[in-house]
Amino acid sequence: MDIKQVYSLVKDGLTGVEDKFKVLASEKSKTFPELHKMLEQILGSGGKVVRPLLALHSGSLYNYQHEKLVNMASASELMHIATLVHDDAIDKANVRRGRATINSIWGVDRAIIFGDYLFAKASLFAIATGNLRVVGLFAETLEAISHGELKQGFSSFQINQTFDDYLERITGKTAALFALATEGGAVLGGASEEEIKAMRDYGINLGISFQIVDDILDFTASENELGKPVASDLIQGTMTLPSMMLLERFPGDNPVRRIFKDEGDKQENVKEAISLLKSTDIIDECYDTASKYSNMARHNLDAVADGKNRQALLALTDFVVKRNK
Amino acid sequence: MDIKQVYSLVKDGLTGVEDKFKVLASEKSKTFPELHKMLEQILGSGGKVVRPLLALHSGSLYNYQHEKLVNMASASELMHIATLVHDDAIDKANVRRGRATINSIWGVDRAIIFGDYLFAKASLFAIATGNLRVVGLFAETLEAISHGELKQGFSSFQINQTFDDYLERITGKTAALFALATEGGAVLGGASEEEIKAMRDYGINLGISFQIVDDILDFTASENELGKPVASDLIQGTMTLPSMMLLERFPGDNPVRRIFKDEGDKQENVKEAISLLKSTDIIDECYDTASKYSNMARHNLDAVADGKNRQALLALTDFVVKRNK
Repeated sequence: MDIKQVYSLVKDGLTGVEDKFKVLASEKSKTFPELHKMLEQILGSGGKVVRPLLALHSGSLYNYQHEKLVNMASASELMHIATLVHDDAIDKANVRRGRATINSIWGVDRAIIFGDYLFAKASLFAIATGNLRVVGLFAETLEAISHGELKQGFSSFQINQTFDDYLERITGKTAALFALATEGGAVLGGASEEEIKAMRDYGINLGISFQIVDDILDFTASENELGKPVASDLIQGTMTLPSMMLLERFPGDNPVRRIFKDEGDKQENVKEAISLLKSTDIIDECYDTASKYSNMARHNLDAVADGKNRQALLALTDFVVKRNK
Repeated sequence: MDIKQVYSLVKDGLTGVEDKFKVLASEKSKTFPELHKMLEQILGSGGKVVRPLLALHSGSLYNYQHEKLVNMASASELMHIATLVHDDAIDKANVRRGRATINSIWGVDRAIIFGDYLFAKASLFAIATGNLRVVGLFAETLEAISHGELKQGFSSFQINQTFDDYLERITGKTAALFALATEGGAVLGGASEEEIKAMRDYGINLGISFQIVDDILDFTASENELGKPVASDLIQGTMTLPSMMLLERFPGDNPVRRIFKDEGDKQENVKEAISLLKSTDIIDECYDTASKYSNMARHNLDAVADGKNRQALLALTDFVVKRNK
């Protein structure tokens, strides 16, 4: 199945999410114009809507409940957006998805509170599913995300990090929210506990694969493709798999170590790190690791009866690795 | 009833909340020592625990459900603490309740994520009540708080604000969380819809009264009593009732206007504003307004059958006005 079909199969659900966001953005236009502008800025930025896609396909495997699933899908996407607003405020990032960030327009202070507002709105979408178990998953996911981000903060610019540290962080940062979408979808669809577990594992493995590829693209894609500066993680002192492998491969002096130790010209070091990565097989090895996890995700779907939505979820295990942005 | 009795009547419940917080603070001591330290710093700071007090008394009016109420009380207090962490990060405040703030020790960036982590934990307490209506109230309250804070941000250093603007902001900032505690308690206790509405109104009116007195004390109490610098709202450009009345009373040049317009020496202007307030009857008038709302809160309790817990809630309507810190 090609990626276009993956989207078109759940077109109704995706339109439902878009409609929810349109209502959300417009409801403050008269009473609080500044908030309305903030919502328009952040909700109009498009993106791959991977989390809604996962929630909708996962829920469609079983007893399809349109309204509940649309609320679940909206909750997962809006929680994702809320975390990005706080991430960008912390990183003082100016551009995201090719658009100006909230903090770059309204300042860090308002971005903090606006992110809190989005968390509240995301919670209300989760609550609108009427399913307390799903609401519980939602809160646990926010816990996992913020826990992962705190770990990232406390480990920034630290050289000695293991693959397990990295795995724990990206599980919190990305895979937990993927798992919320797939597990939540399965719960709402009335799947068996075994299937719910399989869909959760699928989300975790797919999320890990997705984040590893994100971390590769951070070095190999163009600023235009990324919608943000190249190697931004390295510049922020966040250890990712390519940087970690470069440190391992070149135990003496190397550009990643220099950036982490704040030695030499940062931009020169970044350039050197990118060309050093491209001159080795590190990127290929990172892709192998990403493929390992997406293959595990593929096998998690063995627990699920075949059909169009399962085929779409299988196609996504390929897509997350092969995408170029 | 004196204030000591108000606390001792729900001692079991308050101890339950303390125990929940102790477990929360200790659970990360081995796996994530830095997070453990952050939790110890913020959960050990005491405070008046007004919100747990309200939740426990409100719930005890009806069918007392210890575990659910303790979770509800913990949720309301932790949500309050989470908002303070973000407020202090935004205000770059160094001291709160006489202790160093999270941002002053660990920086603004980590304070943002730590606040998110506390929101997640607060949500999990709310979810542990097992009552989807209470969870819904919880999310609506976070929405009201962040909406109020955003309004405050967009109106800071603006001279032309009405009493209604002020009322709207403090309802979001403080009264919404008081109402969560009282309404949530009533819902968990199995009160009638009429009683739930009365307890909600009580929380709103008491919260407004409480915040007006907070805004008075910001000018009249000592730094030691406040646990933070005097007149910090004025310095941050946040309009409160005393400042608003001073602007009204002295339409020409005055120290509040100068601070809002960033004219002259800030510390000199603050000193002048405080002595000008003390030389007029503005503070008395502010207290009259606070009393008006606490009297409304008192009357909201007409809908509730008498008993020790109702007497405690009545006593609180006096206490919020008469307290000196």
